[in-house]
Amino acid sequence: MAAPTVVALAGGVGGAKLADGLQALLGGRLSVVVNTADDCTRHGLLVMPDHDTVLYNLAGIEQPGLGWGIEGDTHAVMDQLGVYGEPTWFSLGDRDLALHIARTAAVRAGARPTEACLAAQRSLGVAARILPMADAPVATAVRTAEGWLEFQEYFVHRRQAPEVLELRLDGIDAATPTPEAAAAIDAAGAIVIGPSNPLVSIGPILAVPGMRDRLAAARGRGARAAAVSPIVGGRALKGPADRMLASLGHEPTALGVARLYADLVDVFVLDAVDAALAPEVEALGLEALVTDTVMADDAARVRVAAEVLRGVGVA
Amino acid sequence: MAAPTVVALAGGVGGAKLADGLQALLGGRLSVVVNTADDCTRHGLLVMPDHDTVLYNLAGIEQPGLGWGIEGDTHAVMDQLGVYGEPTWFSLGDRDLALHIARTAAVRAGARPTEACLAAQRSLGVAARILPMADAPVATAVRTAEGWLEFQEYFVHRRQAPEVLELRLDGIDAATPTPEAAAAIDAAGAIVIGPSNPLVSIGPILAVPGMRDRLAAARGRGARAAAVSPIVGGRALKGPADRMLASLGHEPTALGVARLYADLVDVFVLDAVDAALAPEVEALGLEALVTDTVMADDAARVRVAAEVLRGVGVA
Repeated sequence: MAAPTVVALAGGVGGAKLADGLQALLGGRLSVVVNTADDCTRHGLLVMPDHDTVLYNLAGIEQPGLGWGIEGDTHAVMDQLGVYGEPTWFSLGDRDLALHIARTAAVRAGARPTEACLAAQRSLGVAARILPMADAPVATAVRTAEGWLEFQEYFVHRRQAPEVLELRLDGIDAATPTPEAAAAIDAAGAIVIGPSNPLVSIGPILAVPGMRDRLAAARGRGARAAAVSPIVGGRALKGPADRMLASLGHEPTALGVARLYADLVDVFVLDAVDAALAPEVEALGLEALVTDTVMADDAARVRVAAEVLRGVGVA
Repeated sequence: MAAPTVVALAGGVGGAKLADGLQALLGGRLSVVVNTADDCTRHGLLVMPDHDTVLYNLAGIEQPGLGWGIEGDTHAVMDQLGVYGEPTWFSLGDRDLALHIARTAAVRAGARPTEACLAAQRSLGVAARILPMADAPVATAVRTAEGWLEFQEYFVHRRQAPEVLELRLDGIDAATPTPEAAAAIDAAGAIVIGPSNPLVSIGPILAVPGMRDRLAAARGRGARAAAVSPIVGGRALKGPADRMLASLGHEPTALGVARLYADLVDVFVLDAVDAALAPEVEALGLEALVTDTVMADDAARVRVAAEVLRGVGVA
């Protein structure tokens, strides 16, 4: 029997780090289904932040310590775009822009975003496949005291400061899982939900019509599923997930995240600092897997990935 | 009476140098109508080589010694586009690309190319106005022994090596002078045809339906017109104009150029090395103005511009 394949669901930084660890162990047996609801058009170019964060991590060229971009990238284009009056708060490096330029050209020429992304992955020598959740555009909007904001306006320009009162996924009803994502899930021997924001990173993936049913069908065929908590000690390791959980009526703890995923996974991975929550996670019907989940270096990425794979029964 | 305005017609390098000298003397009284028939789409972005060469010259940031780009520009984007398999023979610098990105975004959002170009000129503090000959796309094609080639394929990729057997201007019948170019010509106190390739730089401007009539009407109202030879001593100072004149049945000399412009101008400016051709130029019914036309530095640009303005009677 062929070695089992694994599908990971991921948003930005946390999911990208775990995917990188999984790739180190699985190589081409890994497919990563990424959120596209924070994709946007900047300067007329299609930008896919979550795909690209995963891409650069899996290619080993990510900018350390930040959630976007390429290590050592320069900013000549952005500086000059500012001269032409273009807004510069969404900073894109020069080498990063090359991806947006090439992919936008391919999509305008008729390629699906997935096809353009797969071509870029091959160019960068990535072993795994990074699959947009959908090719049709989906856009997260965030309601705040000031009204509805486009996601990057909230996330980058406002630095996630406004309290989030409501989420909306424009276009989600017309979206379908891409053929590639659907096929990967249908063939998956295990499913891993990465430590990404459950509401605005993993949430949109799960909201694509048909996605939950497809994941459930995979589990029905014997695939085990695990989720890794993005909340450690009541705080998001990166980003606004903790405050967003609270303002949207969820408990801003690993347990709150476990509740969101209770019907989707068999195993819930908790950080050691949250070990005391394990009985309550188990009371939800989940196996609690307690380990150090902070992925501060490459070795930690691989170690956490190995623990998760052990949890879902993949060698 | 207001000081007269001047319209210059220009292609790339030679026309840009003269326009720079004219701008030094005329400031905002200068409008430059530029060829758009070698505009092209590269990596999904609208590139306007002649407009941009004039723009960078008038902004004082042109790359010295080359016919394109910004002085000291870097090439991070282009190098990375090569990684993604994009052709890299049409090299675009990073700061140069910012213009193509911003302008393409504006045009896709509904602006006319002229409007996007004028915005860029204002951003770079250019005193004159640089006006595309037409907003509708026009594309020069070049027939060679290998068949028809797109202009930049011939000009940049093949380095103008193939002999040109025929020219074609796709889209020219549907083009009209832009409102801005038309208004500038209608108000012009003088017209200057720059030392650009008469066949593929000035030729397309003159081929825009209505353009010749409009120039003739301006002369009918008293505007004097001059042309500066791009051929000096039987050689083009830059580019393939000499070989192209010969292969398309014209005499590859200043006199051959004078014949092409005989019904368009009052004054023909010859380089001192071609002084012996002056009687033959005058036999065409033109005034021959003999001077040193080589614009090797900024002072020479201003000096030649001053000579030309004297020739057309503009102080």
